[in-house]
Amino acid sequence: MFRNSLEIEIEWGDCDPAGIVYYPNYFRWFNYGAHKLFDAAGMPFRELMERYGIVGVPMLDAQATFSAPARFGDVLQVTSELAEWRNKSLVVSHRICRGDTLCVEGREIRGWVARDDSRPNGLRAVPIPDEIKRRFRR
Amino acid sequence: MFRNSLEIEIEWGDCDPAGIVYYPNYFRWFNYGAHKLFDAAGMPFRELMERYGIVGVPMLDAQATFSAPARFGDVLQVTSELAEWRNKSLVVSHRICRGDTLCVEGREIRGWVARDDSRPNGLRAVPIPDEIKRRFRR
Amino acid sequence: MFRNSLEIEIEWGDCDPAGIVYYPNYFRWFNYGAHKLFDAAGMPFRELMERYGIVGVPMLDAQATFSAPARFGDVLQVTSELAEWRNKSLVVSHRICRGDTLCVEGREIRGWVARDDSRPNGLRAVPIPDEIKRRFRR
Amino acid sequence: MFRNSLEIEIEWGDCDPAGIVYYPNYFRWFNYGAHKLFDAAGMPFRELMERYGIVGVPMLDAQATFSAPARFGDVLQVTSELAEWRNKSLVVSHRICRGDTLCVEGREIRGWVARDDSRPNGLRAVPIPDEIKRRFRR
Repeated sequence: MFRNSLEIEIEWGDCDPAGIVYYPNYFRWFNYGAHKLFDAAGMPFRELMERYGIVGVPMLDAQATFSAPARFGDVLQVTSELAEWRNKSLVVSHRICRGDTLCVEGREIRGWVARDDSRPNGLRAVPIPDEIKRRFRR
Repeated sequence: MFRNSLEIEIEWGDCDPAGIVYYPNYFRWFNYGAHKLFDAAGMPFRELMERYGIVGVPMLDAQATFSAPARFGDVLQVTSELAEWRNKSLVVSHRICRGDTLCVEGREIRGWVARDDSRPNGLRAVPIPDEIKRRFRR
Repeated sequence: MFRNSLEIEIEWGDCDPAGIVYYPNYFRWFNYGAHKLFDAAGMPFRELMERYGIVGVPMLDAQATFSAPARFGDVLQVTSELAEWRNKSLVVSHRICRGDTLCVEGREIRGWVARDDSRPNGLRAVPIPDEIKRRFRR
Repeated sequence: MFRNSLEIEIEWGDCDPAGIVYYPNYFRWFNYGAHKLFDAAGMPFRELMERYGIVGVPMLDAQATFSAPARFGDVLQVTSELAEWRNKSLVVSHRICRGDTLCVEGREIRGWVARDDSRPNGLRAVPIPDEIKRRFRR
């Protein structure tokens, strides 16, 4: 499947008093990995929102398993993959490693959401265009 | 099971350009809910770390399902529950609601971890004392 | 001058590996204090944005002096005051204390900003309505 | 003076409902810029803490002036400079630009702080070794 890797460096403020990464930050990097995956497919999020009228790809479900802690100054590799297309949602899987050591793996299920002022929360899930899916086959 | 509720108010910086809560923040509130659950059981984390020599209760696995978005100024109720005790870990479940609307539910599996300088990462999972578990039965 | 106080509790993830609050967080609480100051004056930000067509009160200048560190579990008092009105901006001062100990003090200078699509960055500073200023005299 | 530049990319979660960077994040990047400045001088913070027994270089005073907003997907240049050495503190100035546009400039005054268990807060400012200062003259 279509895949993209990037590096992040652990900042001082990413870590907690135990000296290890405060876990919600890993979801920030999942989110960043998903965005860069779309960039790598030639579909930058900013364009996507303008061209397809979506307001974002909000999270439906997120999960992470933590195997090894990371610390200030560590450089981590985030590998994100388009794991599955559904009708109005998509699954992105992520692996975060320090060299050969797996630190965190998990996945996000994200909706494809447009603005809909007729709905109470102003948002509505819509089918993902095939044009988008094709980009990730290349 | 033992349960605790608290309120949080959504701040401006908790929300993203779509005007809804940036999802990693919900894990911050899961984490906060877990800490306050221990406080409510009379076992504040700070004391816990001093008395039992643990360095924290780091995350082994975290999961959340997102049902409804929340926005700037919303007041949310976070209800956290000690869902399961395991030998060296525990499961805390969380529900985040705005009034009657469920926004997010999920759970954390957390380790009970002491410092161990003989180990490569300096940490070691240890059995959870019965004294701790008993506190949550009251 | 018009003033408002609130309490915050230091969370685990607010602190860094030195065990003290990671300093950018204090600006989050300055921001929160400023919002609650407007709430206390009966001008909640959310209404303000709808009624006066502003997109926020973005920061022009922020400054903080750090006197004493705060730690996980500390409860801090944040006192915010409308220190000065200018034509298109305002100054909010903040003091963050733990009991009698001053931890941080500083101030924000904020603009009063409306959307203006004719401008390159889409934003324009506009005069603050007297009606707003009057609310803070009460 | 000794200077270092780095690039950051604005993430979705760095921005607020007005679509612009939530201002406390700029102080995260000031902090990151300061750390990379020390790296560039061959004095990585992690080594520094081990070799000189310091627990960090906590903030004494931070200030920023905001000139132009930045948005999701923007790539910003952060240029950090060792502006001044004092006896037990140092001044680091920062400029954050998007191409030729200055977005934010400011400075941090940081202490040089060692652990001191005889003090109520467990910390004590100590003179900065000349060896450190010399590294920044090269």
